[in-house]
Amino acid sequence: MANYIPSTKLVERVCAGDMRAVSRLISRAEAGVAEVRSALAEIYRATGRAHVVGITGVPGSGKSTLVGKVVQRLRADGRKIGIVAVDPSSPYSGGAILGDRVRMSEIGTDPGVFIRSMATHGAIGGMARAAMDAVDILDVAGYDTIIIETVGVGQDEVEIARASHTTIVVSAPGLGDEIQAIKAGMLEIADIHVVSKCDRSDAARTLTDLKSMLVLGALGSGDDWRVPVIGTSAISGEGLDELIDAITRHRRVAFETELGQRRRRSVAEFRLLKTAEALLAERFVKARSDRTAEYTEQLLARTGDPYALACALIDHSLKTEQGSTDDENT
Amino acid sequence: MANYIPSTKLVERVCAGDMRAVSRLISRAEAGVAEVRSALAEIYRATGRAHVVGITGVPGSGKSTLVGKVVQRLRADGRKIGIVAVDPSSPYSGGAILGDRVRMSEIGTDPGVFIRSMATHGAIGGMARAAMDAVDILDVAGYDTIIIETVGVGQDEVEIARASHTTIVVSAPGLGDEIQAIKAGMLEIADIHVVSKCDRSDAARTLTDLKSMLVLGALGSGDDWRVPVIGTSAISGEGLDELIDAITRHRRVAFETELGQRRRRSVAEFRLLKTAEALLAERFVKARSDRTAEYTEQLLARTGDPYALACALIDHSLKTEQGSTDDENT
Repeated sequence: MANYIPSTKLVERVCAGDMRAVSRLISRAEAGVAEVRSALAEIYRATGRAHVVGITGVPGSGKSTLVGKVVQRLRADGRKIGIVAVDPSSPYSGGAILGDRVRMSEIGTDPGVFIRSMATHGAIGGMARAAMDAVDILDVAGYDTIIIETVGVGQDEVEIARASHTTIVVSAPGLGDEIQAIKAGMLEIADIHVVSKCDRSDAARTLTDLKSMLVLGALGSGDDWRVPVIGTSAISGEGLDELIDAITRHRRVAFETELGQRRRRSVAEFRLLKTAEALLAERFVKARSDRTAEYTEQLLARTGDPYALACALIDHSLKTEQGSTDDENT
Repeated sequence: MANYIPSTKLVERVCAGDMRAVSRLISRAEAGVAEVRSALAEIYRATGRAHVVGITGVPGSGKSTLVGKVVQRLRADGRKIGIVAVDPSSPYSGGAILGDRVRMSEIGTDPGVFIRSMATHGAIGGMARAAMDAVDILDVAGYDTIIIETVGVGQDEVEIARASHTTIVVSAPGLGDEIQAIKAGMLEIADIHVVSKCDRSDAARTLTDLKSMLVLGALGSGDDWRVPVIGTSAISGEGLDELIDAITRHRRVAFETELGQRRRRSVAEFRLLKTAEALLAERFVKARSDRTAEYTEQLLARTGDPYALACALIDHSLKTEQGSTDDENT
């Protein structure tokens, strides 16, 4: 630990845009070490400049390709871009889905782009908490646009994509029924709809379906914003200008309108509650260990039932936790 | 509420196999009403006869079709079958993916089959808790085999499929890269591997890949069990006999070996902790409301940071909770 730089010392370097410091601080935030919290508090107070864009879509919708194209366009305008890719890996292996593999070749060598994959294994709510910490760090480090990319399959992933100023939902033609049904759950959260792979012949129908759904439900639209449906093709480049324009217009909505203010409030509430849930689960995990085995045996022997034993475990844990040193509250 | 039958009264009817009582009690368990807990405690103590089979696979792997075929075969042996399908719907709309729609036509009219879809919206860990309660209720109601079906995409879904005696992971040829990467996270949890759609010409390669992966890693196999890889076709019926045989053999492993005993212990521990997490989150949600708005404004104004405010919210909530009537612990 001789070379360990205290997290509060890293803050200064992060503010100067030092990518190694950014990377280190994100790792510590992801690991959830208590030492990093005062640094993150300092970081948080300095945030507020970056435009945070959530991009989500079902597997196979081509969202990673789209992110690559969007980033190239935004870079042409000279903006520094951060990408936080949230990976729904299993708890059993640390698979990386949105991984840097493919994209590294296109945009990964550009020093104006910072890409970070975060795996979802770990504590409940921990993924949302860590992703939002990473966004803060990138904001303070001077990244103008920060993209949070998630696979829109679980509740957590969808929620994280919504914890942004601007949410883009990517659909694609020709996916299976099961995928389409997953998609249905995400449609309402979009500020901007993209139908990718518009070079395909069956894309027109996906576009029409989506537009008529929006007319019926008027989802997400209001006086300040009308949700657009944009067809894009990574091959021909079709629709990309229109998409960049929509992102830019929604950035103004996010920062300058009552609608944007309401959105920021709901993101702040989400963040407060997700962080609290994560901390609560963490405290519980720390405190519970000594009774878990005993209660598991009782459950197995059916001398107790799940609810009664779980209540007993909670009560015991919180009692223990209150008696211990209260390092969580500093 | 004149017609409200107390949950403890429903237990008797559940034990007699009354499907309406089963359905009602599952609904109450899913809603998480406190009134149902003593009934569920009684139910839990009477469980232990059913063989619980978890089936998971990525979207498009054809697992729902496979479940239909497996159920038909098991029904031919006279067994009563319960299916608990866990739906990863978004919190914003109550979409049903694994829904009963398709299957109802084939097996839904058979009185020996009980199908129940559960949506994943709701409290953290609530899905696992509710799914396991539903399994208990079906066990006590006399269902011989209970299938927990999940889309293997999020950590929660994969964990739930593992909370069983026998876990089947369904793969299929010809899915996209992103889907394949999601799949990688699930391979280690299988007691039985199925490669569906084996009538396709590219299925042989998927089978070979999977087999060589298993040889390399020896995942899941031990003295008592060797993880089989079974190719099936819903069209030709190929592999279905072999799959039913594997399920039957693994049932014996689950109930009669040391390996099975270890598995039951780890499922019991998972259940204890998931139930505790769900109850803890519930308590927190109940108690927190009066400070949330205030702390959200502080977060928005950046006069406080997420961790400090979340800690304050937790402390305030738990203090309030301890002062209130303790109806959770009965």
